[in-house]
Amino acid sequence: MTLEAQHDHSPAYTARLGAARGETVRVRMRTTLPVTAVTLRFVRVGEIETAPAHEVTELSGEGRWFEAELPVHDARVRYAWQLDLADDHLNLTALGLHHTRRGFRNWFQYLAGYKAPEWAWKCVFYQIFPDRFRNGDPSNDVQTGEYNYAGREVEHVPWDHPVDAWGDIHGHYGGDLNGITAALPYLTDLGVGALWLTPIFVSPSNHRYDITDYRHVDPHLGGDAAWDELAGAAHAAGVKIVLDGVFNHLGNENALFKAALEREDAPERALFTWRDEAGKPPYHSFFDVPTLPKIDYRNEYAVQEFLSGEESVVRHWLRRGAAGWRLDVAHMIGAGGTDEDNLPLHRTLKRAAREERADAYVFGERFFDPEHALDGQGEDASMNYHGFGLPVMQWLAGATYYGEPSRLDGTELADMLWDAYHALPPQVALSMFNLLESHDIGRALFRIGNDRTRFLAAYTLLMGYAGVPCTYYGSEVGVTQSRPGNMPWCREPMPWDEERWDTELRGKVRSLIHLRRDTHVLQEGTLRFLHAEADAVAFLREYTHPDGRPERAAVLASRRTQPHPVSLTLPAGPWRDALSGEEYPGGAITLDAAGGRIVLQG
Amino acid sequence: MTLEAQHDHSPAYTARLGAARGETVRVRMRTTLPVTAVTLRFVRVGEIETAPAHEVTELSGEGRWFEAELPVHDARVRYAWQLDLADDHLNLTALGLHHTRRGFRNWFQYLAGYKAPEWAWKCVFYQIFPDRFRNGDPSNDVQTGEYNYAGREVEHVPWDHPVDAWGDIHGHYGGDLNGITAALPYLTDLGVGALWLTPIFVSPSNHRYDITDYRHVDPHLGGDAAWDELAGAAHAAGVKIVLDGVFNHLGNENALFKAALEREDAPERALFTWRDEAGKPPYHSFFDVPTLPKIDYRNEYAVQEFLSGEESVVRHWLRRGAAGWRLDVAHMIGAGGTDEDNLPLHRTLKRAAREERADAYVFGERFFDPEHALDGQGEDASMNYHGFGLPVMQWLAGATYYGEPSRLDGTELADMLWDAYHALPPQVALSMFNLLESHDIGRALFRIGNDRTRFLAAYTLLMGYAGVPCTYYGSEVGVTQSRPGNMPWCREPMPWDEERWDTELRGKVRSLIHLRRDTHVLQEGTLRFLHAEADAVAFLREYTHPDGRPERAAVLASRRTQPHPVSLTLPAGPWRDALSGEEYPGGAITLDAAGGRIVLQG
Repeated sequence: MTLEAQHDHSPAYTARLGAARGETVRVRMRTTLPVTAVTLRFVRVGEIETAPAHEVTELSGEGRWFEAELPVHDARVRYAWQLDLADDHLNLTALGLHHTRRGFRNWFQYLAGYKAPEWAWKCVFYQIFPDRFRNGDPSNDVQTGEYNYAGREVEHVPWDHPVDAWGDIHGHYGGDLNGITAALPYLTDLGVGALWLTPIFVSPSNHRYDITDYRHVDPHLGGDAAWDELAGAAHAAGVKIVLDGVFNHLGNENALFKAALEREDAPERALFTWRDEAGKPPYHSFFDVPTLPKIDYRNEYAVQEFLSGEESVVRHWLRRGAAGWRLDVAHMIGAGGTDEDNLPLHRTLKRAAREERADAYVFGERFFDPEHALDGQGEDASMNYHGFGLPVMQWLAGATYYGEPSRLDGTELADMLWDAYHALPPQVALSMFNLLESHDIGRALFRIGNDRTRFLAAYTLLMGYAGVPCTYYGSEVGVTQSRPGNMPWCREPMPWDEERWDTELRGKVRSLIHLRRDTHVLQEGTLRFLHAEADAVAFLREYTHPDGRPERAAVLASRRTQPHPVSLTLPAGPWRDALSGEEYPGGAITLDAAGGRIVLQG
Repeated sequence: MTLEAQHDHSPAYTARLGAARGETVRVRMRTTLPVTAVTLRFVRVGEIETAPAHEVTELSGEGRWFEAELPVHDARVRYAWQLDLADDHLNLTALGLHHTRRGFRNWFQYLAGYKAPEWAWKCVFYQIFPDRFRNGDPSNDVQTGEYNYAGREVEHVPWDHPVDAWGDIHGHYGGDLNGITAALPYLTDLGVGALWLTPIFVSPSNHRYDITDYRHVDPHLGGDAAWDELAGAAHAAGVKIVLDGVFNHLGNENALFKAALEREDAPERALFTWRDEAGKPPYHSFFDVPTLPKIDYRNEYAVQEFLSGEESVVRHWLRRGAAGWRLDVAHMIGAGGTDEDNLPLHRTLKRAAREERADAYVFGERFFDPEHALDGQGEDASMNYHGFGLPVMQWLAGATYYGEPSRLDGTELADMLWDAYHALPPQVALSMFNLLESHDIGRALFRIGNDRTRFLAAYTLLMGYAGVPCTYYGSEVGVTQSRPGNMPWCREPMPWDEERWDTELRGKVRSLIHLRRDTHVLQEGTLRFLHAEADAVAFLREYTHPDGRPERAAVLASRRTQPHPVSLTLPAGPWRDALSGEEYPGGAITLDAAGGRIVLQG
């Protein structure tokens, strides 16, 4: 957490990202310390090798610059800098400056041949739960009693009827892809650059995570024609669409599962893991729910069908215009009813996706610590519940998403976020899918007592943090919950009657989205924490251009609802408030952090 | 770093270690916090599952005890405790108590079916470099001009002649296994329970890491007969012997390599990786040294010959009485001239070793961060350069083993040691091979200016730390170096003229070795840091018996050469100095930490 020495992925420091194995890459380090020598250290065949660094003078920026050649000899190369001083020496790793060599987890890492889906860094995502966002074509609505699922008839629910049954999967509001197409002008005005749609394929439930047919859009969402229309209109509007890939389990009405149930010798039997355990379905399934049989990837049939075959589901929708995949319960996918072979399967999936679309953005739902999966070989990133959304909301709400009270303070929050961030490869950190809320957990606004100031603090952190921000449908106009809890209470339909909108909130949210969309350093800058106290945190984003010129933003947020002056030290100014334009000097400064604040250097 | 809540591997907390996959294990947590509920969390198929914990009252010890059942469903199960309070909740992981769930790296870990070589925990090891320890039979000495190696004649060097040539491998002093056998009474008097011998097999150099014949002891060390005599006498004296396994490369005079060079179609060709690179030997070798061709484990021939075949080297010497293997450059072993398949190969090696001898102690030389290799499947542990020896000596000496000056202070030292310690499975942490010095790096006494006070501080840390302590031949009597640097200066012959011994130092070292040998909590206790400041650190060792009764030791050390009063807080007393017997109360206390100090509770 120091500005005394810096190295990161930006072009002044790293000549290029994604160089192939066998090449070398020029890397640089800048320091204001009185160094007598600088060397580059890197790990090869388990040994720490040394490459000399020499001083270069053509770059601007405070301090002196040193340069060395890093051999990209492996899929992931770990490296660090050693700074010699007159009577001391320091090691610069991704964790900062230390007298000791820290564990390799903390070292910088270079991923050979890895190209991140950089378009995603430039976008603010908008998550849509299709049944609840907008009804563009009432003629395709699910009708009450139209069909029976898991022993109960489905129901059509009026749009203005609040969600009222715990665990409900039978109530359909009628949202569809036609509605999303119609809302594109609304979304682009908000500043949204990409959508993540929860599942849209033929499925009996309202959430559609129980897929009957992976190769067709549910007719109740408008069918394949509505997809083509949406994909075309979104493309014209410059909006990309990421689909939800449910590859751990399918729905029990899926033809593959029905065939497997029908005949003992059906080839489809091999797609599932059969068992005989008291009180459980005779096959492995998602949390033992009988309607959600788990796919067994021990069998190549499954791998081909869903992931990598020439006509796989992964390939099919990328060909039809999807920009990537959000992978449902990515951590669960595996062989034999378990998560065995999880990482190799994700490598297979990603390879197929990239063959189909070179910039496909593939990120996994890994609700808990995903670090082990994020080496660039499998998913590009994961949903950042662990390293962003859950701790940030726990701090702001004073409770977890399960309602457990918590006195987490800002110091521990910053420590925890930093720990999760610094251990990721830089492109992965920038691709992490950041969110405060989703269809699975309580709405942020509700969890913080519907307080707008604290919500804007949360939103400022979301737009300012390293990673791809995703906002949840309706939050911008103040959609909240009728009662505490997670799903389904967080799935209220989006109001389209503007009378019901909090337009002031929407204006502020829109400004923050636009700011993020238009501010390069927030999209591609590195991150370090500047300050933390019980009720406030602040961090710096920094991107250094090839000539050494830094571009910087500082992001502050308080969890207080009243003005909260926070004192911290910024790099030399001038600085200005990103929204109000108010100007500040650099150095030691006190700023009101309530409601969040982003300041830009220069 | 709190006593407010505790869970560890000791029997009050963990009913048993090494339960097989599929079983469950009773685990417990003790806390002095006003908890309203306690739950056990564990990771399964990537999800965090919950098991209820209920209070148990039959145990003693401060606070309340809670108990739960942990399903051992995988090779390594990660788990943590959640403590609910009236208006807060905390997570207890191996890192301590936090408001957030930390990354899985910090969670407790249970290794299914893993049995540690627990005898090693009870031993102080003594490292011997055979050519320099004791000449028991001058008739087997290498004679000057007896043979030629790498273009130079070997030399016989008189015992009292200091090491005088950098990089020397041709000077032989005449130490042998007969000498070690003769010295067994000396070693057992010192308190030593096990020996690590650097290589003893037929080899041309004085270090013998260039092995010509893996199945015979070098005749200059007394040959196979001297081994049998030593093994028998050591067994009778209760001393175990770990041999040095050089499985990454062999010597160029080895018959396998000579056969490979002789004929293009020799089956031995497959044992090496051939290449054509300018300026390098035409085969991969250790650091490109032509006399040390690297073994290619891509070929099953190599795996069978050295590691796991019925007559492999690993099996051969365990059958002939060795108690385990220290694996030379364990991190380098691999396929195709690289470290590819390193971990699977170590799993193969360990399995073979354990089949041959159920309690074989197998530890790797991994000079740098070994965390990724230490999951119980491969090596039991590694030489603890990274997480103990290098940083401790850097702090005490004010410089690294390469002589780079360092202002590392005790606060960062404690932070770094703790980070390395807490991430290891508990049995692995107790099996880590701790050392201050070796045949590869400068002698500890020399590096700290031959100051006895600081040396005893270092030695106190070595005997007090979690892991298996290893002392280096001669350090107990004050053997030092004639000049700065690492090998060969650290390989001076052991003086047997008692006039040349520092007998006062030897007395203190002997007391510390005996203390470690006789103090259960130092052998099997968990570790947490109690205090750190620039010039001092202190930690607690704790082992809790099945009835809840804790056994505790506190270890302090200062790097000052003059008295250094250090204030810290101990658990409630009474306490006594382990060596002087002086008594202290518990609680806040000030103790002189200069020269190191171990205090025991009760």
